[in-house]
This record gives sequence, structure tokens and C-alpha cells, in this order.
Amino acid sequence: MHVKIAYLVSAQNLTEAKKTCHKVRYEQSVELPDNTLSSYIRENYVGHLEDIQEIGNETYYAEISYNKELLGDDFSQLLNVLFGNVSLFDNVTICGIDWKSLPITERLGPRFGIPGIRALLQVPDRALTCTAIKPVGFTSSELAELVHQFSVGGIDIIKDDHGLSNQSFSTFTSRVDACMNAVNQSEDETGKRSLYFPNITADGSETIKRFEYAIEKNCGGVLVCPQLCGLGSVNQLRNLNQTLPIMAHPAFSGAYVREPVPAFTKAFYYGELWRAMGADFVIYPNYGGRFSFRLEECLEINTALRKDSLPFKKSFATPGGGLQRNTIPRFLHDYGNDTVFLIGGSLYQHPKGIKYGAKEFLEMVSDS
Amino acid sequence: MHVKIAYLVSAQNLTEAKKTCHKVRYEQSVELPDNTLSSYIRENYVGHLEDIQEIGNETYYAEISYNKELLGDDFSQLLNVLFGNVSLFDNVTICGIDWKSLPITERLGPRFGIPGIRALLQVPDRALTCTAIKPVGFTSSELAELVHQFSVGGIDIIKDDHGLSNQSFSTFTSRVDACMNAVNQSEDETGKRSLYFPNITADGSETIKRFEYAIEKNCGGVLVCPQLCGLGSVNQLRNLNQTLPIMAHPAFSGAYVREPVPAFTKAFYYGELWRAMGADFVIYPNYGGRFSFRLEECLEINTALRKDSLPFKKSFATPGGGLQRNTIPRFLHDYGNDTVFLIGGSLYQHPKGIKYGAKEFLEMVSDS
Repeated sequence: MHVKIAYLVSAQNLTEAKKTCHKVRYEQSVELPDNTLSSYIRENYVGHLEDIQEIGNETYYAEISYNKELLGDDFSQLLNVLFGNVSLFDNVTICGIDWKSLPITERLGPRFGIPGIRALLQVPDRALTCTAIKPVGFTSSELAELVHQFSVGGIDIIKDDHGLSNQSFSTFTSRVDACMNAVNQSEDETGKRSLYFPNITADGSETIKRFEYAIEKNCGGVLVCPQLCGLGSVNQLRNLNQTLPIMAHPAFSGAYVREPVPAFTKAFYYGELWRAMGADFVIYPNYGGRFSFRLEECLEINTALRKDSLPFKKSFATPGGGLQRNTIPRFLHDYGNDTVFLIGGSLYQHPKGIKYGAKEFLEMVSDS
Repeated sequence: MHVKIAYLVSAQNLTEAKKTCHKVRYEQSVELPDNTLSSYIRENYVGHLEDIQEIGNETYYAEISYNKELLGDDFSQLLNVLFGNVSLFDNVTICGIDWKSLPITERLGPRFGIPGIRALLQVPDRALTCTAIKPVGFTSSELAELVHQFSVGGIDIIKDDHGLSNQSFSTFTSRVDACMNAVNQSEDETGKRSLYFPNITADGSETIKRFEYAIEKNCGGVLVCPQLCGLGSVNQLRNLNQTLPIMAHPAFSGAYVREPVPAFTKAFYYGELWRAMGADFVIYPNYGGRFSFRLEECLEINTALRKDSLPFKKSFATPGGGLQRNTIPRFLHDYGNDTVFLIGGSLYQHPKGIKYGAKEFLEMVSDS
């Protein structure tokens, strides 16, 4: 009958932390002062503080339970109950929800998941290789030529850079057509088929149209930026009768995990929430690259993407954002085989060319 | 040919600030190291640092220009160029964009705007009154009874609480039907018609379906949470042939303006960006209420919503979140008549009942 949400509250002492929790449990439910509520509403719909304890460093862990009826019937409303008006409190971080108690678990989690993707690619064990075609400014045929080289080199998944949309230098449909021709041509040459993921991120129903176009053209999956088109839109794509593997990209999302008091812990946001939304692959900025995620945080994201305790399928951790060829062995050791390594620039810089770089990349993940 | 974006960069000195800008201009364009780029791509597509200066307190103001072709043809891609991967840099705040240089200004800004809404309501000058029906747990007929009382009391705009979605205690369609009956009945009684705005926030194309239902049922407008359904989805609604006034609610958005280094300045985010997206009304948490926005910040949001320098219509500032009946005169003085005052709890608490509270509220904004 209730769903529990877990919070980290920054406060100077227990009294302050409890005050914040009191505000949260009203703000996220009835949004009215107590003296305007009937006892029926007060007893049944106001959130309840279930637990609160200091965990050090002026931080308190709290659990508040809410009537499940508040969740309605879609992903957007789940987000609203998780973090609607509370998003406006500077001292609250969301760190958990009791997924098992949700009424909609059959519509959560990736459709394919780790074994489903491995079956598609016929790669039963090793880590997967992924790269992005870029830069912006290239024409669709220039980008397709990159797809050709990468796929002949044996890259498992070749995605659009998230900056490729529907632009004059490369329209969405011309790019999908050209890149799928390149994938088919490479398959004829090598007998192995790479998966090409176009970026379908767009406004509202246009995202669905591009998803349908990707299905029609037999793409291997799609790239989408949940924080640009809405996490609920991604969940809707996941729930269409006919669907494709979904790779989620963190563009526009970083604000939710900014220090010092993030809106969500990184593990909950990229790990649990994006997995629940339906991402088969979650791209996050890897430790040691162009962004500032710590190694420990990356490991926690990986754990959240793979843990058994969530009542839906698991997602592939897809670290990127400045991974180098020479750091693959180290991260393969740290992250394990259920990882997709996303390398861009480092392959483009390979002294022997990108086709060779791609081959070398595949060998690195096959040697483990 | 170029669009300029303005940033605030937190850095200990000019050298550090310039380093960040260098990262930004690559991250938000080609996303490849220099030595992989042709001179054509480097000259035409990498962002250019146009200006950087210290503005005090270890903060630098910088302007970077980008090739307009990057913007593609929709709102989501504009957001991506503004704040895609840069969202993952903890030390960068977006504070401006040169709206006039955008190729898509005819699809930006509210459809109705301030004069359009005033014409709909036949209220030429005074500030507008707005309230929300709640709490969650009420049935559609209980909520409709509130609509009846508020509209007989003369409230201009009656919106769903943003926590009302499609729930077992009140489904979306049953609520719209019941509330529109109540609006019609009140109009018969008083000769004045209030505008009812249902909350249409949902997953992907379901938002559009609910928008169309609101049009079909002759609603006065809609409430939508842009950060839940995607800002691009809201811009798409604004651009449909047949449309309605749009009121934007800040649920799930607060992470973008969290201190100490916000992703966006509040004035840019709620003022310029949501106005550009197409919100006729922008709800923000008022100073002195349940949230922590400062008075100065609220005034800056108001200015951004109304300033002449943007090449599209103006939006109504809609402060809410703990406004009290007794503080209306003060904020009316500070904010002026092009304001919609959103009061919830304080009307529900009125000792003489909500119908009387609504009448008193109207008198307060009419006396100026």
C-alpha cells in the first residue's frame, strides 16, 4: 500500500533534519497545511517519516513512505513523486526507492537487458566495444564512411555522436540511410554485423517518429538523451510493442548530480533510475577522462546497473568521455565483462588509422 | 552565421577559467582532439572564445560562439548546444544566449503572451489571480466542487495541483469532465468565466493526447511540468496548429538552479529559457514562502520574462509556493500588474471559507 523513498538530508543537527523531512512529506503529497485537511486525507495521503539517522558529516539518512496511489500509471508521475517540488530544496538528495513495491514493475527496466544484447550480437562473454561517429560538420556520407571503417574493424556498436541531430550538414534520415548501407556493406565484406545506433533525441512525438524510422531501417538500436526528451518518453519507447535496444546518453543530465549536495546520488540516478526507465546501456563519464566522476562513483553506478535486488532486467554499464586505448586493460579489470567501453577520440587518433584502432580495441577486450 | 552563449565559470584564476572555456568549446561542438580534425572542421565548427573577464568572487564571465548549423531544427537540440555535455562540468553556469541570432525565433516564445491572455480573460490591466485544486486523494467530484467555489469567488485561473495526474482517486479524463462542468455552472451563476488548467504532464505522446483532450473539452489552458515531459515537448505543444495557453510548473526542475554553482542562473532558466520554450505563465517559488529563492532573484526572473530585448512574446510571472493573502499587497507593489499570483494553502485556510477567500484575493489585486 506504500512506497518508501530514501533521502540524504544535509542539516546541522537532527532537529533541522527532521524539519526538512516534515516539509518533504507534505510537499511531495498533499501540499496543504495540516489544518485544511480532513483526518481521512491526513491519515491516508500525507507522507510518513519511517526512519532517520545521522550518517556523519552533517548528513542524515531518512526514509519517507507515500501512498502508492500517488504514483498514478506512468514514469513521469513516478519522477514527480520522487523529486517534484523537493527538487527546489537545496539540501535534499534522493538515494533510493523501494522498486519492488511499485505497481508498474513490468513496464520498468530494459527490454533486452544484458543477455538479450549478448544474444543479438552473438557475444556470450567478453566486454563490448563501442564508438561514436563524429564530428559535427561531417556530411552523412563522410559519417557513413566512418561507420564502414569501424564496422570492418569489428566494433560491436557504432553510435551517432549525441551532437548529431537533424542538421543541414547531415539530416537524420540521410544519415540513417547512409550508415545502414555502410553496416550492410561491411557485413558483406567481413561476415560480422555491427549494430548502428542513430541519435533519435528530438521534440516530443518527433522522438517516436525517429524511433520508428530506426526500426523500419533495421538499425541495431538507438541513442537517446533522456534529460532532453524526457525520461518518460524513453520509458514509452521501451514499452512500444515493437522496440529496439536503447542507449541513454547523459547530455543535459549533469545538473542532477552536481556537487556538493546533488539532487540524486550518481549510483541512484544513472544506475537505478535510468535502468528502471528502460536503458539497455547507460553511458556515464568515466573516471580519469574529461569529466570529474570518481572511480568509486563509477563502480557504484556499475553495481546499481547490475544488482539482483531490482525487480527488472540489468543494463550494460557504458563508461565513456575520455577513455583511452591504453587504459582499457585497467578498467576491464576493475569493471568486468558486463561493460561496454565507449572510445571516441582515442580511436580517431590511432597512428595506423581507425580501422586498425578498432581491431586493436576488440583484441583488448577479447584477451581477458 | 554564429550564435553566442554566455557562461559564468568558477575558477581560481584567469588561466584556469580559460582552460575550462577551452574544454567547453570543444565539448559542445566537435568532441574530438584537435589533431584529428581537418582545418575545414576546425575553422568552421569548433566553438570560439569571444570574451572572458573576471567579475569577482572567483567567477569569470565568458562568451563562446558556435556555428548556427549545430542548432538543427528543434528545441531539444538548442538545449543540447546550450548545456549538453557541459552539464557534467561542476564549475559552469549558463547565463545567456543571443536569442536574436537563432534561426527558429518564430517557433519560440508563448503563443498567447501577456496581451493574448488578458484578451481571453477580458482583464486589461490588473494582476491576475490563480489557485490550485488539491489535495491528492480527493475524488474528481470533490476537486470539481473546489473549482465551483473558486470560480464563483472570481478566481481568474484554477489549475490542477501538479501532483494530480491519472490516479485511481481521480483519473485525468474524469477530472477534466467534472471540473469543466463546474466552470460552466459557475459561469451560468455569475456571468464570469474562470479558466481551468488541467495538468497534462505524462509520458511522451500521452502528454499530447491529454493536451488534445483539454482542447476538445474547451479548457482554458493547461498545466505542464517541462522538466518531467521534456522542454522540447512543451515547445511542440506551443507549435501545434490548435493550441491553448501553457502554464509551466517547476517540478523536477530545481536541480538546474541549485547553489552554490547552479547549472543555469534562475533568471536565464525560468525567465528566458522557459519563456522561449513557449510558456505563457512561468510558475516559480516566490521569496518568503516554502522555498529559498531570494527577492532579488524573483525580480530578475520577472525582468527576464518581460524584457523587450527578446525576439518573441512575453510571459506572465507566476510566483507561488507559499504566498499568503496578507503578503499580496507587498508583492503586487514589488512585481507590478503583469503578474499572476498563485495562492493555494492560504485560501484553503480562510476563516470564512474558500469562496470568500477568493473574493478577497480578487479585491486585493483590483485595488492597486
